[in-house]
Amino acid sequence: MNQIPNFLLERVRLTPNRIAVVSDQEEITFKELHERVIQLAGRFHSCGIEKGKHVSVLMNNSIEFIVTVYAIHYIGAIAILLNTRLSEDEISYQIQNSDSNFLIVENENFIAPPSTVRVLEMNNIQQFEVKPVVIREYFNHDEIATMMYTSGTTGFPKAVLQSYGNHWSSAIASVLNLGLDQSDVWLVCLPMFHVGGLSTVYKSAIYGMKIVLAEKAEAGIVLNYINQYKITILSVVTKVLNDLLNFEDINKGLSSIRAALLGGGPAPLPLLQKAQERNVPVYQTYGMTETCSQIATLSPEFMLSKIGSAGKALFGCSLEIRENDKKSSPGVVGEIVVKGPNVSKGYYKLQTNDTSEFFYTGDLGYVDEDGFLFVVDRRSDLIISGGENIYPAEIESILLSHPDLIEAGVTGREDPTWGKVPIAFVIAKSKNHPSEQEMIEFCQKKLAKFKIPKEIHFVSSLPRNAANKLVRRELHKLL
Amino acid sequence: MNQIPNFLLERVRLTPNRIAVVSDQEEITFKELHERVIQLAGRFHSCGIEKGKHVSVLMNNSIEFIVTVYAIHYIGAIAILLNTRLSEDEISYQIQNSDSNFLIVENENFIAPPSTVRVLEMNNIQQFEVKPVVIREYFNHDEIATMMYTSGTTGFPKAVLQSYGNHWSSAIASVLNLGLDQSDVWLVCLPMFHVGGLSTVYKSAIYGMKIVLAEKAEAGIVLNYINQYKITILSVVTKVLNDLLNFEDINKGLSSIRAALLGGGPAPLPLLQKAQERNVPVYQTYGMTETCSQIATLSPEFMLSKIGSAGKALFGCSLEIRENDKKSSPGVVGEIVVKGPNVSKGYYKLQTNDTSEFFYTGDLGYVDEDGFLFVVDRRSDLIISGGENIYPAEIESILLSHPDLIEAGVTGREDPTWGKVPIAFVIAKSKNHPSEQEMIEFCQKKLAKFKIPKEIHFVSSLPRNAANKLVRRELHKLL
Repeated sequence: MNQIPNFLLERVRLTPNRIAVVSDQEEITFKELHERVIQLAGRFHSCGIEKGKHVSVLMNNSIEFIVTVYAIHYIGAIAILLNTRLSEDEISYQIQNSDSNFLIVENENFIAPPSTVRVLEMNNIQQFEVKPVVIREYFNHDEIATMMYTSGTTGFPKAVLQSYGNHWSSAIASVLNLGLDQSDVWLVCLPMFHVGGLSTVYKSAIYGMKIVLAEKAEAGIVLNYINQYKITILSVVTKVLNDLLNFEDINKGLSSIRAALLGGGPAPLPLLQKAQERNVPVYQTYGMTETCSQIATLSPEFMLSKIGSAGKALFGCSLEIRENDKKSSPGVVGEIVVKGPNVSKGYYKLQTNDTSEFFYTGDLGYVDEDGFLFVVDRRSDLIISGGENIYPAEIESILLSHPDLIEAGVTGREDPTWGKVPIAFVIAKSKNHPSEQEMIEFCQKKLAKFKIPKEIHFVSSLPRNAANKLVRRELHKLL
Repeated sequence: MNQIPNFLLERVRLTPNRIAVVSDQEEITFKELHERVIQLAGRFHSCGIEKGKHVSVLMNNSIEFIVTVYAIHYIGAIAILLNTRLSEDEISYQIQNSDSNFLIVENENFIAPPSTVRVLEMNNIQQFEVKPVVIREYFNHDEIATMMYTSGTTGFPKAVLQSYGNHWSSAIASVLNLGLDQSDVWLVCLPMFHVGGLSTVYKSAIYGMKIVLAEKAEAGIVLNYINQYKITILSVVTKVLNDLLNFEDINKGLSSIRAALLGGGPAPLPLLQKAQERNVPVYQTYGMTETCSQIATLSPEFMLSKIGSAGKALFGCSLEIRENDKKSSPGVVGEIVVKGPNVSKGYYKLQTNDTSEFFYTGDLGYVDEDGFLFVVDRRSDLIISGGENIYPAEIESILLSHPDLIEAGVTGREDPTWGKVPIAFVIAKSKNHPSEQEMIEFCQKKLAKFKIPKEIHFVSSLPRNAANKLVRRELHKLL
């Protein structure tokens, strides 16, 4: 449909007294959530937030985060969701690049915001008057609801445009695969500034489903939530699922789970086998910021026969493998291209896609004879570390901003805790170059902690192809 | 979304080997269904059925009916679904009025089709070659999929335009209310030439859900299906549900049912209380041909507190009570008006609605303080008899076509078996008028059996209001 209803407003009309969100501090119904949203929207309005304004949000998972995002939607402004793990430089860039008029923060911990933005602190938002707001009841399918930054292969962070229709379609495609039960409780242990977390917030309203916010995504803590709240669905990264399955007496502890959605790269076979032994139904998924959460998921009946696959494109979506713009044969690895009503139309102030055409993900995979997707590698060079995407090009450009370096190459190294961590190979201008430790300190000022290379190797040359392009997948040979 | 995927094609891509449909004769998977559709579409194509052609379907519930409808969709033609209970005159009118190029019948039992239409008999369709067809993969939201006739208050049958987007949106709105379980099996005991039955066919493909076709909608037979196939959902009319609940040892027999959708007019309180005693969750629904199945349904948590209500408009839909185009206060009876992506844009060759505006249903009801709909009466004068809609004006116009009558009024009389049956009051030109029996015989030639008045009373005047308009609700006073 062309008109997308205001998710929360619709839900409040239908089942106001169902529990919407549970946090460690409290649980609130959809009606209570709505009432808080109305209040906050009113305060935002008296601060000048209006329809169409760009509002950056720099918050960690909390009920207040959800209230903030919906308040922005109720007004019809656009929410830019910033990763709280980024460095101040990175955050400042995104605030400016997104033309944000406002920045919502939990408290004054953000020291040096750009002067172009008005900062509103949630811990003293009460000082502002509640000015009545005309609540948006409907949105157009293509109207932008949120933006989230992703660096892509270029190393330049760019804002993915996510429309109300994208978010709605994602929730609908997912329910047709996962089903929906009145007793469903979804545990949110992914950050809500990423689409994996935020999409669950929208699903809560669209499905009328309770969500529980995990304080931390550590396995021991997650297990407590599962037991306490009879969690039926959760989205996890490989590391957390692995740890969960390594607990003893797990059968009892995880029995309420009817679906563990596993994203963030191809799952190792031993993990899936362990899950199978322990009766935890793992739904391997494939998705990205540009697809507003999953675009492919393995249907339950294929869990055993297609172990390791990310399934098929969800109902109404499609995917193909292409090489040189031609569809590859089954079994042949190529670039994954996707299409569907949940696929973003592009990037803010940059290229936009014709959404009736396929979107090139940059990820590598193949489709088997039965049409099942197997993801071979994320965006050739992408490093996924503890669920966060790290783009080598971004780190390389920071390294190259140092006056003593002339070349840099970054790749991922296996890590037992994080899956992968970034490591760098650099060429210095002269023998009097800074030490590895000095370079790491240089990066600390400019990059989020998880992006700082764990090793920086000084080398004399980097692997390059015929076109003199850096071949990052060969960097590890320099070790 | 603007593009609606071909429901069956999408489902075959995702879960080809799930059972799609079970009949008394066989059960077939989605893949097998698709293969039959491809075959039939090829034969239809070699007969000249092409994109945009109008194809009337005169068939009873069967797997072949489903194959036929999908074959028409695969080609991109428009299916006009004719009620097999109508008289030949009525059917001929609808074939002509809908500008049908083709008429699909089970066999040659339809004697005198209009000369403008080419008749294809399913029992010898094999004689036609299978000519390859370009299968439609997507449809536009507004593209017409089906038409179904409804008489409305005017007495003139008119074809409701039902788009692919209408059918899709109806299935989506329903799943967000009813939920979806992998073990769901929906029993189809409503005719598929009505939207109540047809919508279940589409839901089967969209949800990946098994449906079972009941040979008859008699309670004893329905109970057998429920037991044999562990039916979880069924749509029923009051009479069948009532009979079902009157069987002894019902607790065992109905325990698999998680939702009994009850449409077709306000449900009597004793029936709902009996269902409650017997643990059968009844979802009272409200819908019509123009809303492509339900538009309001009572959510399970309100089953007890709002007994007798048809609930609230489904997610993404809305409804109001209006009197003289103004919204009525809670508790005040008025006309029910509805809006949503499942609402038809209007009638073939007649008025079309702006679908962003409310559609006036002609039904009467009120909304309570909490926003719950209570349907008081269907379209003031509408008579619902065994799940079929009967419009008094239509019968009146047939009666008035008799040369010896000058006035006629038709209303419904309570009937223990059918809910209501039509009865007529007529004024004759002279004392030498035909007998009641002669008038009934006159009607038999022109009207479906269920529409023929059970009583015809000759009277000297009919109740009329100040504007000299017939007041049908006062007709019973003449008895």
